[in-house]
Amino acid sequence: MKSYRKELWFEIPARRGFINITPEVRSCLAESGIQEGLVLVNAMHITASVFINDESGLHHDFDKWLEKLAPHEPTSGYRHNDSGEDNADAHLKRSVMGREVVVAVTKGKLDFGPWEQIFYGEFDGRRRKRVLVKIIGE
Amino acid sequence: MKSYRKELWFEIPARRGFINITPEVRSCLAESGIQEGLVLVNAMHITASVFINDESGLHHDFDKWLEKLAPHEPTSGYRHNDSGEDNADAHLKRSVMGREVVVAVTKGKLDFGPWEQIFYGEFDGRRRKRVLVKIIGE
Amino acid sequence: MKSYRKELWFEIPARRGFINITPEVRSCLAESGIQEGLVLVNAMHITASVFINDESGLHHDFDKWLEKLAPHEPTSGYRHNDSGEDNADAHLKRSVMGREVVVAVTKGKLDFGPWEQIFYGEFDGRRRKRVLVKIIGE
Repeated sequence: MKSYRKELWFEIPARRGFINITPEVRSCLAESGIQEGLVLVNAMHITASVFINDESGLHHDFDKWLEKLAPHEPTSGYRHNDSGEDNADAHLKRSVMGREVVVAVTKGKLDFGPWEQIFYGEFDGRRRKRVLVKIIGE
Repeated sequence: MKSYRKELWFEIPARRGFINITPEVRSCLAESGIQEGLVLVNAMHITASVFINDESGLHHDFDKWLEKLAPHEPTSGYRHNDSGEDNADAHLKRSVMGREVVVAVTKGKLDFGPWEQIFYGEFDGRRRKRVLVKIIGE
Repeated sequence: MKSYRKELWFEIPARRGFINITPEVRSCLAESGIQEGLVLVNAMHITASVFINDESGLHHDFDKWLEKLAPHEPTSGYRHNDSGEDNADAHLKRSVMGREVVVAVTKGKLDFGPWEQIFYGEFDGRRRKRVLVKIIGE
């Protein structure tokens, strides 16, 4: 069994934002040389997500929807924020979107359906944060 | 390390619906001959889910609840739909229910608790769509 | 490839509650002797979750928020409860928080970001329930 590990770093200039990280994950897979196995891609921070979906208006829709489900304001509405934090909503939003994805590797490629793309979702940005890519297989 | 891959195809006759796909995943596992490892089961489409739960009234409850959290109508309420689509809500519903499950394989069986069953959740049906089963182990 | 399996048992004295199970998962990993691979940690019951987040007020916030998204009362509002159950909301809450986490194993350690911790989330407690830890790698 082979294994491969890499950290990807991102800094989103706003509190919230989404980036397509599929090209970076593809590069990791190529670098690993693994042909058959599984890729785990996870946010290493608990106010961010890694998820599979698409763009074309959806990022606007996700943002508006997550704000409705778990609004940032009033920040005093969350006990977590009593300690001086203002990011409780980010922990909740990330719970909806998920921490990680596991993707099959087949013949050296990400084994994806027609529209699948991997995104990093930031809910408490304006600082450097990490995503872990771990690949096992052979 | 051994690996196994199969696509399962489904066509749900309505916009939304749920099917128990545990028997199909069990057949894949038997066919793979893998005794110890992990099974990944994921929707290959981004308007569908694979999740683990149960039936007995729950599918009705899930459907009603997801419609409350991310209603189909008005379709004009989603920017994704500006391009002529009407399935933005399906992308959101699938985010709640999840894209994939990872299940342990122990002694050649799906290592499940008493009520665990795998379901395909469709949120934009009436066309043929796929689920990927990938198994690694030995 | 090596594999390891253990069941962890918990009994939460209330209907709902959260416990940090990171120490137990770390012990499993040490016991397995696996240096590189993946750990799957999943609830074996469909009214409970395993997720990665943090504490410090968040458990109160999660509980209040999940009650808003999928309230326990009125129990008659769910078809699942027609059969005499009262835990339909627990199935929905667990869908938001997730069934499982997959964590990378690197150099014999859980490969975590600075604040990542694994929690068991109970939504229908007052009875003994199980979490499965499965580790594969070498």
